[in-house]
Amino acid sequence: MSAYVQLERRLERLSDLGGAAAVLNWDQAVMMPKGGNAARGAQLAALSGLMHELLTAAATAELIEAARAEPLDPWQAANLQLIEERYTRATALPQDLVEAKARAVNTCELAWRQARADADFASLRPHLEEVLRLTREAATLEGDKLGLDPYAALLGQFQPGLDEATIDRLFRPLQDQLPGLIDDRLATQPTPERPHGPFAKAQQKALAQSLMAEIGFDFDHGRLDESTHPFCGGTPTDIRITTRYDESETVSALMGVLHETGHALYEAGLPEAWRGQPVGTSHGMAVHESQSLVIEMQACRSPAFLRHLAGRLAATFGGQPAFGPENLIALYTRVEKGLIRVDADELTYPLHIVLRYRLEKALIHGDLDLHDLPAAWNDGMQELLGITPETDRDGCLQDIHWPVGAFGYFPNYTLGGLLAAQLFQAAERAIPDLLAAIERGDFRPLRGWLRQNIHDKASSLPLQALIREATGSELGTEAFLAHLRGRYGGGAG
Amino acid sequence: MSAYVQLERRLERLSDLGGAAAVLNWDQAVMMPKGGNAARGAQLAALSGLMHELLTAAATAELIEAARAEPLDPWQAANLQLIEERYTRATALPQDLVEAKARAVNTCELAWRQARADADFASLRPHLEEVLRLTREAATLEGDKLGLDPYAALLGQFQPGLDEATIDRLFRPLQDQLPGLIDDRLATQPTPERPHGPFAKAQQKALAQSLMAEIGFDFDHGRLDESTHPFCGGTPTDIRITTRYDESETVSALMGVLHETGHALYEAGLPEAWRGQPVGTSHGMAVHESQSLVIEMQACRSPAFLRHLAGRLAATFGGQPAFGPENLIALYTRVEKGLIRVDADELTYPLHIVLRYRLEKALIHGDLDLHDLPAAWNDGMQELLGITPETDRDGCLQDIHWPVGAFGYFPNYTLGGLLAAQLFQAAERAIPDLLAAIERGDFRPLRGWLRQNIHDKASSLPLQALIREATGSELGTEAFLAHLRGRYGGGAG
Repeated sequence: MSAYVQLERRLERLSDLGGAAAVLNWDQAVMMPKGGNAARGAQLAALSGLMHELLTAAATAELIEAARAEPLDPWQAANLQLIEERYTRATALPQDLVEAKARAVNTCELAWRQARADADFASLRPHLEEVLRLTREAATLEGDKLGLDPYAALLGQFQPGLDEATIDRLFRPLQDQLPGLIDDRLATQPTPERPHGPFAKAQQKALAQSLMAEIGFDFDHGRLDESTHPFCGGTPTDIRITTRYDESETVSALMGVLHETGHALYEAGLPEAWRGQPVGTSHGMAVHESQSLVIEMQACRSPAFLRHLAGRLAATFGGQPAFGPENLIALYTRVEKGLIRVDADELTYPLHIVLRYRLEKALIHGDLDLHDLPAAWNDGMQELLGITPETDRDGCLQDIHWPVGAFGYFPNYTLGGLLAAQLFQAAERAIPDLLAAIERGDFRPLRGWLRQNIHDKASSLPLQALIREATGSELGTEAFLAHLRGRYGGGAG
Repeated sequence: MSAYVQLERRLERLSDLGGAAAVLNWDQAVMMPKGGNAARGAQLAALSGLMHELLTAAATAELIEAARAEPLDPWQAANLQLIEERYTRATALPQDLVEAKARAVNTCELAWRQARADADFASLRPHLEEVLRLTREAATLEGDKLGLDPYAALLGQFQPGLDEATIDRLFRPLQDQLPGLIDDRLATQPTPERPHGPFAKAQQKALAQSLMAEIGFDFDHGRLDESTHPFCGGTPTDIRITTRYDESETVSALMGVLHETGHALYEAGLPEAWRGQPVGTSHGMAVHESQSLVIEMQACRSPAFLRHLAGRLAATFGGQPAFGPENLIALYTRVEKGLIRVDADELTYPLHIVLRYRLEKALIHGDLDLHDLPAAWNDGMQELLGITPETDRDGCLQDIHWPVGAFGYFPNYTLGGLLAAQLFQAAERAIPDLLAAIERGDFRPLRGWLRQNIHDKASSLPLQALIREATGSELGTEAFLAHLRGRYGGGAG
């Protein structure tokens, strides 16, 4: 057996263990009684410890070295490169740093929950300081091994192929143009009628499942359940989507499910022949988010789909004025300047990200002291959105990302939005009646295009090459801004 | 760190991985969409492969050897001995035999499903032949290492401390006395009225959960769900009981849940200080079954509990003549000569086990050829119960145990029944108003006694010593037969 094939076996085993952990995580969020928490923590720790040992074993390095000398086809070569990067990252850090960071993150997450409840940033600061210090130390070590600066090393954990210069270039037009677009929209947008409930949970679930199936979710290979924080988990042949229902309203849970369905289509569409190998997995968080947003924002908030949805809502819950197509369009494209990222609409959301990107870069570079974070946050909110939180609970304490050490994650949300718009534009060029099909509830053309241009290619290409092959150009802001102008600027979008 | 403590760490990791596998098995039976089957199989295989590697690593043998020279308290010494036995079993077999057996079992289980559907033993025979051959080969190798004959080696996989001579001695009075008891009961038993449904699933579940809580199941540390084959799985702090509901009747599902609750109390009651160590786990399948049967057969089919249950059933589903206490007692102690073990009542069940025990012993010893199994089965049924199956579907094809290589398992069902009766008798001696408490729905006295005499001791004692400490004598048939005479022979039972 060639060294390369032996390496594939090893990675397949790692993937199986990762799949086991994914099911355990789903169970913890959806099914587990609270008393099972300690045992579940131990199970997940044992799995992650074993995975780390398998990946960092001397045999892995020897196989990588030997496989480099073997004849490989392009996917195998890409796979070997990805395996090597994983190995390099996993071996870049001394064990005591890994453990110190895990402990610090654990403590900091608990401190964050309390600090957010108390709106007390000062009580979080020393813990966040420690997480930041260890994150910078780890990013520096990983970056040195990978030839990346520390922030790029962090970015690369979540989405390979990104750097600060690229993100700066992409975010600048957003921060320049969105404030004006927002003000225009606020001055002109219609005031929609709110649907009157109650909306029974069972009916909401039935409608959600029916729409998921329409979009292409295969219930022989997945489930829809409930959890406090909606997510898409599981494995490609057993995808677990969760949502939460509010019987007093149905619009937001529904769109949340469609968003997660976009993530699910990506996982389900990854090439079967490469399952379990790094080259066969999803490309990164920005591309993953593009797949959820192309379904939610591009397809399902389009007037075409909302006209379709109007009929489905009326058939499920009975007709009411709020379910009229025009009202539904107004409802699902409503813009508001708010303090909370997760509640933000499509138009204001990128500015929440721009703020976090600026601040986390400064923190990692050492240009911003944590003492000054709350003020810097509030200044940024005032500059970008013209509003200021009353307490840090609605300001720099709102997100879990930094307290758990996930610096470099935030940009992906908006990069995913840019990519979704660029992909949808390309799909419309290729399939002239794309929106007409969506209006009939027929997602096959869109799904087929995404499958061919994104899902099938998995991680076989660098990020910009993937985007170029799919859309004709590297990632830009033109499609996204055109989409926003069309939808929110009084156009037809 | 002493070698013994290092060994404990290793076993704790194994236990965590085993816990992960238990949750994955539960999910597979209860939640998983059918398309997830292949991935789940790979996840479980990866886990079991890693567990085997951890257990059989050279380091394990070295630590065992070194720990032997260290000062250990009695629980530690018992733990070391159990670890050594696990290691010995795991290393007794060459890898190709392990793999050949796994393949043979896999093929044979599929063949069995088809053969049972077709009532065609001939189609199963060659596959069962292969499983039997490999099981004997493995049992011989394990037995040689452990100083046991092959059948004792098989018995010991499921319940340590058993041998053929002991089981022969215990089963003889059953096969001598039960046929007469059965005929007497059949001639004199009352004919109960059947409850009239439908019984809505949600109400059945609510009643079951309420009774589980009464008996002592902690829903902060467990769940009740549905699966095709009811079981008790999960881990001691997160116990997953399953059942299935039939809306046309409620009596059997309910008693099934109470049976599994007995298993759950045992797991939940194991000593916290020894969690994750072999000495801290349940003693074996016979003891485990005694814990389910002491709850189901001794406590919950007693007239005392059934009088309590009568009120609960009427309160849940509304009163009806069938829910009268006397009728309920007649219903739950109804005896019938049937062909199918899993449908058998308390009085006829042991004869189903006696038959299987005789036959599997003969198969393992090489005294019975598989060609002759169907005839030997039918002869045995005729001798013991006076009935003969029309086809092998209701005869030697009915159970999954032998096709999956689980020879040596069957005796535990009835040994558990004997032990349950002996334990309950001892508990009644110690707590004179035990049944009066149960009639009030108060299981604390019984639970406390079981906790102190069985659960707390886990695997720290040999089987007979455990039973002697709890009941004053080794395992016998007197308590069981006295219980049966009392319940079915016209006494007050």
